[in-house]
Amino acid sequence: MTRCAVDVALVHYPIRSRTGEIVTTSVTNLDIHDIARAGRTYGVRAYHVVTPLEIQRRLVEGVAAHWVDGPLRLRGPERAEALSLVRTAASLADVVRSIRDEEGVEPLVVATSGRPRGRPTVGFEDLRARILSGPTPVALCFGTGWGLADDAFDRADLLLDPVMKGGGYNYLSVRVAVGIILDRLLGDR
Amino acid sequence: MTRCAVDVALVHYPIRSRTGEIVTTSVTNLDIHDIARAGRTYGVRAYHVVTPLEIQRRLVEGVAAHWVDGPLRLRGPERAEALSLVRTAASLADVVRSIRDEEGVEPLVVATSGRPRGRPTVGFEDLRARILSGPTPVALCFGTGWGLADDAFDRADLLLDPVMKGGGYNYLSVRVAVGIILDRLLGDR
Repeated sequence: MTRCAVDVALVHYPIRSRTGEIVTTSVTNLDIHDIARAGRTYGVRAYHVVTPLEIQRRLVEGVAAHWVDGPLRLRGPERAEALSLVRTAASLADVVRSIRDEEGVEPLVVATSGRPRGRPTVGFEDLRARILSGPTPVALCFGTGWGLADDAFDRADLLLDPVMKGGGYNYLSVRVAVGIILDRLLGDR
Repeated sequence: MTRCAVDVALVHYPIRSRTGEIVTTSVTNLDIHDIARAGRTYGVRAYHVVTPLEIQRRLVEGVAAHWVDGPLRLRGPERAEALSLVRTAASLADVVRSIRDEEGVEPLVVATSGRPRGRPTVGFEDLRARILSGPTPVALCFGTGWGLADDAFDRADLLLDPVMKGGGYNYLSVRVAVGIILDRLLGDR
């Protein structure tokens, strides 16, 4: 079987705030590192940090370059390998466009949510089978803040089941949720 | 089936440094939060932050209390619920003692490592079955820095398989590794 390319997108807009407004969240240094490391561990093709704020995109690129080409490269070769996955994009549409341009085919855009959203969902086993059988690339989209806004779900082809399907307490950090979801979809069995 | 109690211990001593020395690492605010949130999601009994440095234990207790009893409680009820799992201990031996005192039985101490250690390991499915059939409590021990020192493995009853058993790139952050391991051992199927 030829596994398809899997990209991760960490979305900072459009995001829901605690009070339900649509906001742009700030990028964080640790999300860059932790998600790049998990992405590299599970063989992700690229990790896109998505924000409309150019200054924040420059910040992300600067952090990655510092480890990939800069003074910290030799201190942390594993980290350089992880951070070489990092890219930035102004919007989810730009992420989709770049995957299409590079892979030559429209990716399947899969949104994630920790909470039920009143929309049909795809199960982990179904998506895993789809990824393993290729060839359509998959873009896994994760929300920061209080999750992706409805507009982001409208643009996705599929919504993945929540990690805790039975409901109850569900308040993982996005870093940890990305790791768990990559393990379920791409981990060795 | 009665699932046994599962505790998580995040160990800051004895830890290996990048260069192989035995060191005490610093606690970090994000490890407190992310691991407490994952612990609460998967029904962990308690989350022990282990460091011999009293001032760091006070810091951890202060952070947790700030959300559990303090001014931030009402702003983040989910976070208060997670941080109420946080405890501190001066050593792994103290963690074992407190579990024994509270649960009335010696816990099974399970060490984790991202790299092979030349010791026999227990597989995820075996440990999952053991946890689900109870009643012996399990203490899952995670290293910070470059992993638990040999001394910590000597005190453990079992060593868990690495997350990436096939080898290759293996450089997850401890926060993400805890989430993945809890999902494999305790997650819904």
